[in-house]
Amino acid sequence: MALVVQKFGGTSVGSIDRIRNVARRAIATQKLGNDVVVIVSAMSGETNRLLGLAHEMVAVPDAREMDVIASTGEQITAALTAMAIQNEGGDARSLLGHQVKILTDGAFTKARIKTIEGSKIFSTLKKGEIAVVAGFQGVNEHGDITTLGRGGSDTSAVAIAAAIGANACEIYTDVDGVYTTDPNLVPSARKIDRISYEEMLELASLGAKVLQIRSVELGMKYGVRIHVRSSFSDAQGTWVVPEESAMEKVVVSGVTASRDEAKITIRDLPDTSGVAAKLFAPLADGSISVDMIVQNQGHEGATDLTFTVPKGDRKRALDILRAAVPEIVGVNGEQIQFDDEISKVSVVGVGMRSHAGVAKTMFELLARENINIQLISTSEIKISCIIARKYAELAVRALHEGFGLSLPPAERAGL
Amino acid sequence: MALVVQKFGGTSVGSIDRIRNVARRAIATQKLGNDVVVIVSAMSGETNRLLGLAHEMVAVPDAREMDVIASTGEQITAALTAMAIQNEGGDARSLLGHQVKILTDGAFTKARIKTIEGSKIFSTLKKGEIAVVAGFQGVNEHGDITTLGRGGSDTSAVAIAAAIGANACEIYTDVDGVYTTDPNLVPSARKIDRISYEEMLELASLGAKVLQIRSVELGMKYGVRIHVRSSFSDAQGTWVVPEESAMEKVVVSGVTASRDEAKITIRDLPDTSGVAAKLFAPLADGSISVDMIVQNQGHEGATDLTFTVPKGDRKRALDILRAAVPEIVGVNGEQIQFDDEISKVSVVGVGMRSHAGVAKTMFELLARENINIQLISTSEIKISCIIARKYAELAVRALHEGFGLSLPPAERAGL
Repeated sequence: MALVVQKFGGTSVGSIDRIRNVARRAIATQKLGNDVVVIVSAMSGETNRLLGLAHEMVAVPDAREMDVIASTGEQITAALTAMAIQNEGGDARSLLGHQVKILTDGAFTKARIKTIEGSKIFSTLKKGEIAVVAGFQGVNEHGDITTLGRGGSDTSAVAIAAAIGANACEIYTDVDGVYTTDPNLVPSARKIDRISYEEMLELASLGAKVLQIRSVELGMKYGVRIHVRSSFSDAQGTWVVPEESAMEKVVVSGVTASRDEAKITIRDLPDTSGVAAKLFAPLADGSISVDMIVQNQGHEGATDLTFTVPKGDRKRALDILRAAVPEIVGVNGEQIQFDDEISKVSVVGVGMRSHAGVAKTMFELLARENINIQLISTSEIKISCIIARKYAELAVRALHEGFGLSLPPAERAGL
Repeated sequence: MALVVQKFGGTSVGSIDRIRNVARRAIATQKLGNDVVVIVSAMSGETNRLLGLAHEMVAVPDAREMDVIASTGEQITAALTAMAIQNEGGDARSLLGHQVKILTDGAFTKARIKTIEGSKIFSTLKKGEIAVVAGFQGVNEHGDITTLGRGGSDTSAVAIAAAIGANACEIYTDVDGVYTTDPNLVPSARKIDRISYEEMLELASLGAKVLQIRSVELGMKYGVRIHVRSSFSDAQGTWVVPEESAMEKVVVSGVTASRDEAKITIRDLPDTSGVAAKLFAPLADGSISVDMIVQNQGHEGATDLTFTVPKGDRKRALDILRAAVPEIVGVNGEQIQFDDEISKVSVVGVGMRSHAGVAKTMFELLARENINIQLISTSEIKISCIIARKYAELAVRALHEGFGLSLPPAERAGL
């Protein structure tokens, strides 16, 4: 007998029939002897409809009132799901953020969970009912409704699983797990059976949309075993779990390519202290997040600096720099170059910690395809290279093949 | 400086533009120096859409979950209205049933208000904000969401007005007040300036849709001055207030015709005690409300009994009677007759209490048009006659003219 949290995203509850499927799955899980807590998102499209209604009223709606409206999407799904479970012969009860209660800070539209009371959920389970909790929502200390931001239902699910000590948190989605790379790009991509929180965090921050980053952070913090799986099949998906010894044998878990960044290079900077601070302070003030930064070794008192920013912010970044540090960037833009046609290709794996040579192999694999590396950045379990956009797919296929990701982990050659 | 409650129905908040109008009116009222509490219904059509969604899932949805869904309609309007007020330069905050809080009993889909806390409303007003309260909803003692039944926002408004001691409760609707009779039927119908709770109750129970009966009962119980008026104009509407001396001069306030009833007659009943109880007990058990009952003086040990039931229940009433008391009603239906083609025409007025002869005048006015009266029932301030359906419009016009309702109250002749 286990305590299982099952979270269903917008696509999985996108129609009356799909909600019936959710109900059948929850009942089946309960019949195996489990206590079941279901977390639901709004039906797909509903949140956009609600935001549209608010924006029709006001260009920039009040955040508190926005949350009052946005939270109704999950409220409706929760009640419909409870009805569906009852209709399939089960017992169920919907619970909203203020009923559970899920206490958050007061940052409307992007609140963070502070505490979750388990008593209402436990008393519901004790009656033999399935507890259906509206995702994405909570209340602040004044009882105002708050929402957790896009994808917040993942966070609701993992946080509730942590609060009630669930044995597993199942995240049902429209893909059947986390893959070694994008299967649309590389047909030989493999579903990963087990992945560590750290690797999942790197993959999520590199654009893998399957889990919200904050939910992975929470899972890591509280040791919640997360199972990402398809709501359209019974196949096992991907378990996101604490790092374990079996994983060490896998050097690289996944390969990703992101096309969301642009590169800015400033030439002939004075090679003196304080220059970098002068450049990046105004960007930070403008809420532009700078990702990779590389400064070459100076020569003859001058140096070049290159960094990447989100592609949508590139133009604004240049405007800010020209206004804030004209003595460096200049107004005619002579010293400045930019490139929107780049891609960031990354390999991720906890095995890098104990295996030297991953970077070398990566560079060799790219060189073999005559792909020039423009920038490099590394973390403990990730290596990223900026390359020309046109080589992105080729690079992903070469790295995926070169690191043996098409093979089951046991059959991959060591480095 | 007064404390004003303004309630806007589904038509008055039926679009983004109409909600903007609501916002402007609330701000204008506040600028006159008033504290303003706005109560809103769901946008017109929204409640039906939500109920439809639930019924698509289950033929008979769980009442608790039904309320979770239905309450989102008012939740959305409340937030949109607060946004609209902010957009027009005012300050506002939406408040839901559980935030106010409006405590009800546990009768989901038809809950009754037990208590209303005023503190959240007062603290909102104290900050100079307009409090926008979602109508129709409350919470039971367990924090479950409840709704008050159709038209429940009227009840929310009057109950809140009573709880916070408002100087007036304005009910904005798509008509500009209560009329002496249906203006579509009688062009000379006059808007009534002031009417007593008792008269309004009789008119509402006779089918005048302008105010929900329970809201009038509440207004009467707590002495809330209710102002029924149009959301599309600034004209004064109809005040529903305690009976006052000026009203006594008006003998008849209004004339109505209802087409919602059917008549059942059982002939040759044994004229002994207990027969009526035998007949009506099974109808009450079947939740069929019997309205008018007339039993003739018996002759030769037998009597006839006639009564009316809601037209939609007529067939079921006969089935129940045949099954429950076959020895009286028989299965071949020989002793039983029914007539669906009837109308109940009524005159209402507190002045009847002190003026004899209203009934006589009514009967004379109908006789003058050769309209046969089939049944009569009277209350202290109402006389109703069942007549053939085809004469309903003629009867209303004759009574409206005969009692001088086309004239201003001061110019009407005494009886």
